[in-house]
Amino acid sequence: MASFLELISFIRTEVNRDLTRLPIPEKPAYLYNPIRYVLRGKGKRFRPILVHLAGRANHADPESLMKIALAVELLHNFTLVHDDIMDNDDMRHGQPAIHTKWDDSTAILAGDGINAIAQILLSGLPDRSNAICRFFNQATLEVCEGQALDKEFENDVSITEDQYLEMIGKKTGSLLGACAVLPATLIGCHQDDIDHFDQFGRALGNGFQIHDDLLEIYGNPEDMGKSLGSDIAEGKQTMMVIKARNQFEKEWGEIIADSTAPDLMEKIRSFFTKSGIESETKLMAESYFNSARKSLDKINDLNREELNGFVNLVENRTY
Amino acid sequence: MASFLELISFIRTEVNRDLTRLPIPEKPAYLYNPIRYVLRGKGKRFRPILVHLAGRANHADPESLMKIALAVELLHNFTLVHDDIMDNDDMRHGQPAIHTKWDDSTAILAGDGINAIAQILLSGLPDRSNAICRFFNQATLEVCEGQALDKEFENDVSITEDQYLEMIGKKTGSLLGACAVLPATLIGCHQDDIDHFDQFGRALGNGFQIHDDLLEIYGNPEDMGKSLGSDIAEGKQTMMVIKARNQFEKEWGEIIADSTAPDLMEKIRSFFTKSGIESETKLMAESYFNSARKSLDKINDLNREELNGFVNLVENRTY
Repeated sequence: MASFLELISFIRTEVNRDLTRLPIPEKPAYLYNPIRYVLRGKGKRFRPILVHLAGRANHADPESLMKIALAVELLHNFTLVHDDIMDNDDMRHGQPAIHTKWDDSTAILAGDGINAIAQILLSGLPDRSNAICRFFNQATLEVCEGQALDKEFENDVSITEDQYLEMIGKKTGSLLGACAVLPATLIGCHQDDIDHFDQFGRALGNGFQIHDDLLEIYGNPEDMGKSLGSDIAEGKQTMMVIKARNQFEKEWGEIIADSTAPDLMEKIRSFFTKSGIESETKLMAESYFNSARKSLDKINDLNREELNGFVNLVENRTY
Repeated sequence: MASFLELISFIRTEVNRDLTRLPIPEKPAYLYNPIRYVLRGKGKRFRPILVHLAGRANHADPESLMKIALAVELLHNFTLVHDDIMDNDDMRHGQPAIHTKWDDSTAILAGDGINAIAQILLSGLPDRSNAICRFFNQATLEVCEGQALDKEFENDVSITEDQYLEMIGKKTGSLLGACAVLPATLIGCHQDDIDHFDQFGRALGNGFQIHDDLLEIYGNPEDMGKSLGSDIAEGKQTMMVIKARNQFEKEWGEIIADSTAPDLMEKIRSFFTKSGIESETKLMAESYFNSARKSLDKINDLNREELNGFVNLVENRTY
């Protein structure tokens, strides 16, 4: 396992290095300063790492893989820059978001520029660039659909688990699906296997997001201040909140009635545990991770060890 | 000439028809309602018309041309949707801009979705899709650079004619260059000819924009209210304003000193005429249109009649 973690760390370092080596011009500063700033942010680089692992499992050309990996990371960052404006999120990857450090106009344009750079990278692929560009942009459109659902669901207390799963499937699952599919497309995999890669990445993505919902509540107790508690009381949707609202309408309503209570976060956490929502949600995440592993098992002639290692890593992450 | 205008009108109708036939889903409504709204707007469709004419001059496949034409029109509209947020422009193509009718978040996401749809269209080209996608996205990045310069130049009274020309070259010229280059790339033209198509489109684009600056002042007297005059007095940059500021600093300063004067627009117009700025600017536009024609003349085996007709049309437009 030590060597697998070393591999992950090595890929992350390579991705970060190549992100800073992208030929970003100096001028106009209005466009390129914020883009350079985003590329220096401390992302976890899960998506480009998954591209490389899926490519290694398929013996794909490392240079082409890196182009896809960087394009996927750029796409992810372009959507984050725009989402942060829409969602009024002020911090991103340990630094002020662009729209906070500069302004909304700067952030809109930086996101557009990052997306164009991603597309230029993909157009430099020697093989099967058509199919790769098509899948990449279908995933982009699906991420936009997920963000649209997220905006539609804001403050809507009638949202069901299925609607939430559809939203995270589009917002997170579709891009993780693309991370697994694009390397398979690069080497010309059979359509059945491409479908399995897609199912693998999407299941991993949904597991990732539900695990994220859990981590937000239980992951890092010292970080948990009033802000998350009041966000939840004021309508932030997560899988656990939806379960609480739908299964325990009265008790849940009483807990979040006072969004300024100093012990609000502790009350929420202990309610999720006692009501069984914590364990129910953990089982749900686990079932997505298992479904991801099963999709891998269906693919012939695949070196699946590293991809399974990656699923374990995502499943067991604590930050 | 009648038949040429009929051709233009025919192409515009076909483009509008195919824009409304794009398979835009119903849901999520948050994303797709604004996108449908934009596609119904009354654009002049100059860019997709130029794509078709450049393609006809090269005997390119009409179906592929239409994909490129629609992608270019979508790109143009995506940047307008985002620019309108950045520039606080409330109206677009005869209807409220998306950020006015809905809000900024809706407009940001709609722009991103329109761009993704453009990219998906291009990835469906049967031939030379790599080179086409690369040029298309390099043009997109250059349009972003142009918008960045436009933002940098806001309220900067030291801007020179050269800086203004660089800005409009990126914001308008680069995309008109792409309209001429993409059909030539589609049929695999020699690089020398591609460069000439690029020069043709860029010169046409700069002529178009400078002519637009003139039309804004002299085009439609009954439309000219206080709004344009006060925009100019408050720092809007056009070629004529820059000439006035740099050549007649004192007189110009006196004219725009009172941005609420009821006869401000008439004063500005008559100053541009008497000072020779109007005729100087007309000569400048004319020289770009002539340069566009000369670039066409350098291309071998080209049926350049319709493209020259298009230059005449742009040069003589009154709205």
